[in-house]
Amino acid sequence: MAEIETFPNPAPNRNYVIRHVCPEFTSVCPKTRQPDFATIELEYVPDQSCIELKSLKLYYYSFRDEGIFFEAVINRILDELSSATTPRWMRVTGHFNVRGGISSVVTAETGSRG
Amino acid sequence: MAEIETFPNPAPNRNYVIRHVCPEFTSVCPKTRQPDFATIELEYVPDQSCIELKSLKLYYYSFRDEGIFFEAVINRILDELSSATTPRWMRVTGHFNVRGGISSVVTAETGSRG
Amino acid sequence: MAEIETFPNPAPNRNYVIRHVCPEFTSVCPKTRQPDFATIELEYVPDQSCIELKSLKLYYYSFRDEGIFFEAVINRILDELSSATTPRWMRVTGHFNVRGGISSVVTAETGSRG
Amino acid sequence: MAEIETFPNPAPNRNYVIRHVCPEFTSVCPKTRQPDFATIELEYVPDQSCIELKSLKLYYYSFRDEGIFFEAVINRILDELSSATTPRWMRVTGHFNVRGGISSVVTAETGSRG
Amino acid sequence: MAEIETFPNPAPNRNYVIRHVCPEFTSVCPKTRQPDFATIELEYVPDQSCIELKSLKLYYYSFRDEGIFFEAVINRILDELSSATTPRWMRVTGHFNVRGGISSVVTAETGSRG
Amino acid sequence: MAEIETFPNPAPNRNYVIRHVCPEFTSVCPKTRQPDFATIELEYVPDQSCIELKSLKLYYYSFRDEGIFFEAVINRILDELSSATTPRWMRVTGHFNVRGGISSVVTAETGSRG
Amino acid sequence: MAEIETFPNPAPNRNYVIRHVCPEFTSVCPKTRQPDFATIELEYVPDQSCIELKSLKLYYYSFRDEGIFFEAVINRILDELSSATTPRWMRVTGHFNVRGGISSVVTAETGSRG
Amino acid sequence: MAEIETFPNPAPNRNYVIRHVCPEFTSVCPKTRQPDFATIELEYVPDQSCIELKSLKLYYYSFRDEGIFFEAVINRILDELSSATTPRWMRVTGHFNVRGGISSVVTAETGSRG
Amino acid sequence: MAEIETFPNPAPNRNYVIRHVCPEFTSVCPKTRQPDFATIELEYVPDQSCIELKSLKLYYYSFRDEGIFFEAVINRILDELSSATTPRWMRVTGHFNVRGGISSVVTAETGSRG
Amino acid sequence: MAEIETFPNPAPNRNYVIRHVCPEFTSVCPKTRQPDFATIELEYVPDQSCIELKSLKLYYYSFRDEGIFFEAVINRILDELSSATTPRWMRVTGHFNVRGGISSVVTAETGSRG
Repeated sequence: MAEIETFPNPAPNRNYVIRHVCPEFTSVCPKTRQPDFATIELEYVPDQSCIELKSLKLYYYSFRDEGIFFEAVINRILDELSSATTPRWMRVTGHFNVRGGISSVVTAETGSRG
Repeated sequence: MAEIETFPNPAPNRNYVIRHVCPEFTSVCPKTRQPDFATIELEYVPDQSCIELKSLKLYYYSFRDEGIFFEAVINRILDELSSATTPRWMRVTGHFNVRGGISSVVTAETGSRG
Repeated sequence: MAEIETFPNPAPNRNYVIRHVCPEFTSVCPKTRQPDFATIELEYVPDQSCIELKSLKLYYYSFRDEGIFFEAVINRILDELSSATTPRWMRVTGHFNVRGGISSVVTAETGSRG
Repeated sequence: MAEIETFPNPAPNRNYVIRHVCPEFTSVCPKTRQPDFATIELEYVPDQSCIELKSLKLYYYSFRDEGIFFEAVINRILDELSSATTPRWMRVTGHFNVRGGISSVVTAETGSRG
Repeated sequence: MAEIETFPNPAPNRNYVIRHVCPEFTSVCPKTRQPDFATIELEYVPDQSCIELKSLKLYYYSFRDEGIFFEAVINRILDELSSATTPRWMRVTGHFNVRGGISSVVTAETGSRG
Repeated sequence: MAEIETFPNPAPNRNYVIRHVCPEFTSVCPKTRQPDFATIELEYVPDQSCIELKSLKLYYYSFRDEGIFFEAVINRILDELSSATTPRWMRVTGHFNVRGGISSVVTAETGSRG
Repeated sequence: MAEIETFPNPAPNRNYVIRHVCPEFTSVCPKTRQPDFATIELEYVPDQSCIELKSLKLYYYSFRDEGIFFEAVINRILDELSSATTPRWMRVTGHFNVRGGISSVVTAETGSRG
Repeated sequence: MAEIETFPNPAPNRNYVIRHVCPEFTSVCPKTRQPDFATIELEYVPDQSCIELKSLKLYYYSFRDEGIFFEAVINRILDELSSATTPRWMRVTGHFNVRGGISSVVTAETGSRG
Repeated sequence: MAEIETFPNPAPNRNYVIRHVCPEFTSVCPKTRQPDFATIELEYVPDQSCIELKSLKLYYYSFRDEGIFFEAVINRILDELSSATTPRWMRVTGHFNVRGGISSVVTAETGSRG
Repeated sequence: MAEIETFPNPAPNRNYVIRHVCPEFTSVCPKTRQPDFATIELEYVPDQSCIELKSLKLYYYSFRDEGIFFEAVINRILDELSSATTPRWMRVTGHFNVRGGISSVVTAETGSRG
């Protein structure tokens, strides 16, 4: 896994929400080995640290050759980003492009928005 | 009924939501024998198993020659998909094309979103 | 009043929502005798019976020469459709076209959504 | 036919274009006696006279109980409005609502735009 | 203040919502004497009387030469319309056009929606 | 092939354009036997006859079980509709849904728009 | 008429196009004395001088109490702005709000775009 | 910090909401010294004073040469505007343009909406 | 280069246009080694052969690890697809995602549309 | 003026079009010293050299503290970029944000598109 860098939360005494939307996520279908494409939406309430934007981009980039299902992608991103930054609350949503005439959205969250 | 295939939920300890949207649903009006068209939106919180996407597509495809009313379509899809996958929560919404100058939406759900 | 036909609810044990949207409603202004135009949105949770779509269309059509105010249109449709079908919950919304530079929306409901 | 009123063109020495769009046109299908709905778009280059807006509205209103096909509606409006106002150029476009799953647009014009 | 006319609520036994949207509101900035433009959205649950649409239009028209700030416009409209019609609930929202690169929305309400 | 019915052109002395848009076209992929979905746009300048709308719907319906490629669908519809109605000009456009991450549009025409 | 100020064209050797769009135009209907509202779109190829933006705003503002028809508004603006700035080409388009269920667009131009 | 001017709240006895949206915010990235761009959305329930619009514009303008991260921008605006005007409730949202393929939204609030 | 498969043009006597739009193109920036993302639009008039859709998808897929500039991508796709299928006319357009605050579109064509 | 870097056109034998759209342009009004904001659209047919994207960004950035009118901005960008890269054809369009209730677009070009 690519390293997630963080920087100190400039307002740790306040519950506030950060959202990063990346329409440039791509991985590989483990069954067909064809590329999958998605927009990944990350929302979180930081505790002591915020996610540095460039390392987030590189982290998403590390899935480019990974064979992984939609449901597993979102749960793994949530696990890895929340364990790297211990946010008060975090939600990850993947909007996956049409496959077989069906588009898919997977949403998982952890913690409490406060 | 076409067989619904499933695969093990990769994150069974977490309540999270999966949504599949299929704009390519077609069945037949039981009164006029004319084709009906709809977008079917499926949302669920998986328990032990997730719905495999290709089998979902084939399941929808199996309605192509079925004579069935809008209200019955949605309730039957909800019954069959929820009994095949025993989700924690499931909602099915059908957006049906204009008939006689009127468009219709039918929404049914089962279980609790948690 | 045009007769509203019904058919048996295919899933009477479940609370679910049906919505019919008709952008082709027209009546007559009782003051100016000029035609009024609206989109009528009907939502309901059926109890024992569902509204047959073609009879709904004819019912709306019966207002074509009626002189009636916006507020009265929506309350009368709600009264007549709910008494004809005894739903668990029903809401009627009229989106009326611009008159004198002002567009209007009137929304009334009865029962409880459950 | 409802009378079309005109007023003198304030700039008869200039070729310029006037467009009136009315989303509130309704007539009756001659086969099924069901109402049809359309948006009528009128464009013209006036010569000596311009069409008065209120009389245009009443003219469209006069089709409310008329049984007439889409193609005939547009050609008749073009014939009647152009003969009432002798424009340098005139085009009539009807955008008809969905019937049998098909929406229709009919466009006819006369004269030259200059 | 222009007189607000009312007519008897056709369904006083029911709590229902009426919304009138007017994109043609204009007043004058008290500091610069330049015109301001807004869309005014009025929503209310009528008690015994409903607001007559033409008198509402004339009421809005009466602000045309008035020098008044955004925040004062909305509170004054709410005060005057609620005291003229004693609704069960009323909300007034003004969407004001860009001034100095900033667009503004002001929303005030009174009573309880029930 | 389903029979295309026509009716006499009400304005044969004028070149004018008729457009029918049907978002409810479905056929079958000859390679995979999976259903394909498209919006078919038909435009033509009638000569002596116009296409009757209901027969057009039934004609499109006749492709429902046909195994045929996108490119062949559009050329065949153009051939069959133009030979059935001998228009002055005709154009057929198919907007096909996403397959393998790629959406497709095929456009063919015959005659001269005049 | 409010004075139109100009400043020297910074590129008089080049034919290029300037467009100013003002959604805040209002005048008064000469028949009903009710306010009219429009978006005015001005396009021109400057010759020796360009229109100063603030004076254009004040010029439009000067119509606020003017009783004038749509067609006359556009032709008068074109006459006055072109005679004040002698452009190589100028076009004025007014998009007028709905009156009696009909919205209107009037477009006039002078000179040649080059 | 640029001075925030206020004026007396015209309706201090009522809880109501003011929203100002400014799509013209720009600051500088502290790491790369490249400009950042954002739309800043300010919402608040005033207590005794309202924010004067022109001073708000100048306040935003004062960030033009400031090197500051997204998260710090929003928390600082919230701190400074709330301490200058002591509102009952205030929320600041920044919609930041795409950087490295990722767009960001940061939202912070203080007080209670009442 | 991935092999482009073709099938015989079903209507070689007619000039008609085929368009394939793929929003799932990704390559790598040769300077930064970061991934680039684009929508590729292919339009052509076939001569004797049409491009098979699945092989087109695989052809685009072959750029996934390629380091190549925007301008070179489009010209190379045009060269390779036109030499593989010898169309009467072909145009390739790439809509590239924002990089450094700037989005880019590159369009190249060959042959004559006829 | 910031230096514009170029790289060799990969397809100098073909006339093709490159478009770069930058929504992050800002300069300063020479009269009021207030910031102006615009989206700059650059289109060109390269001859021997293409514009390097990062240097284009820095070039736009160099206007940040420049006091300059809309019309002069566009003509100067066209002059400077065309003299730095000697394209076969070039067009620059600026979409400037609302000032005084009026939004503006300025478009200038040089050379021939071929």
